[in-house]
Amino acid sequence: MTIISVPSEKAYRLLNHGATTIVSAQNDGVFNAMSASWVCPLDYDKITAVISTASFTRTLIEKSGLFAVQLPVFAQKDLLFHLGENSRFSMPNKMDGVEIFYQDGFDVPLLKNCAAWLICQVIPEREMLQKYDLFLGKILAAYADNRIFDGGHWLFETAPDELKTLHYVAGKACYLDGKKV
Amino acid sequence: MTIISVPSEKAYRLLNHGATTIVSAQNDGVFNAMSASWVCPLDYDKITAVISTASFTRTLIEKSGLFAVQLPVFAQKDLLFHLGENSRFSMPNKMDGVEIFYQDGFDVPLLKNCAAWLICQVIPEREMLQKYDLFLGKILAAYADNRIFDGGHWLFETAPDELKTLHYVAGKACYLDGKKV
Repeated sequence: MTIISVPSEKAYRLLNHGATTIVSAQNDGVFNAMSASWVCPLDYDKITAVISTASFTRTLIEKSGLFAVQLPVFAQKDLLFHLGENSRFSMPNKMDGVEIFYQDGFDVPLLKNCAAWLICQVIPEREMLQKYDLFLGKILAAYADNRIFDGGHWLFETAPDELKTLHYVAGKACYLDGKKV
Repeated sequence: MTIISVPSEKAYRLLNHGATTIVSAQNDGVFNAMSASWVCPLDYDKITAVISTASFTRTLIEKSGLFAVQLPVFAQKDLLFHLGENSRFSMPNKMDGVEIFYQDGFDVPLLKNCAAWLICQVIPEREMLQKYDLFLGKILAAYADNRIFDGGHWLFETAPDELKTLHYVAGKACYLDGKKV
């Protein structure tokens, strides 16, 4: 497995198929991550992300102005639910055992073993944040696991189920990526 | 097949798994529809939709203040690409042969044979529209084909491939909904 850089003009493709994401951020050495389904391309180099005021991760994003969006795979389903159901506000050790790494030049924690990562800078749109909890982000860099995304394309038709991305629906249920048509 | 009304608190689930949509609208008896991948829940009763100024459908939405978001199924893949690649600006007969229907009380054309439909009213956020082509919509009503969505849940694990929703990636390729996990 190699983590490859995804060219900026292809980065939106990491989100285009609508998989569920995990949003991560850090500030002053404190990092956190939360599951987020409502993340979407806004343009080829921009995204939107709905992040509630109840989330600890949001406080880190508001301070640092940076966040990462990553796509967990089926093998990480338990992690996805752990990060979605538990807040660092009430569970200070929420991130214990969650393996992270960094890419050169970006002070944003990335979760190991995901399918892909987008590092984003907050575009200041204060009113959207206050009224709708809507963050706008400019994509600064994007990366992918080359077993799952390479040459600008997802490889789900050959990837094993453990490496497919998750499309969260409700309860504890997700759909995996299916047949390519 | 029966078209059922989806309770407002479950309507976001129609979009949560990230399938590709078709946006439709009408004004003064003129209607149109376009494919749109960048549509996302904003809240349980609100959505966002990126709709370019190049789109004829956008002119109808701006005049009428209403639009519908529908989820096409695999059997409609050719329709999805037709509506995505051709503009009514250059192809006046774009909608010839596209079957539509209406729900009582809403002057918005809905495309037959989709999996689900959300009727939305534009939330006026002029700056977002001008800067980012981002529409915000309040969900007024939602409906689904009960073979594909019922009791608040998608039924892809039993639906045949033709009735699965499409997750557009790039070129002419989509992934269908896959295994439930």
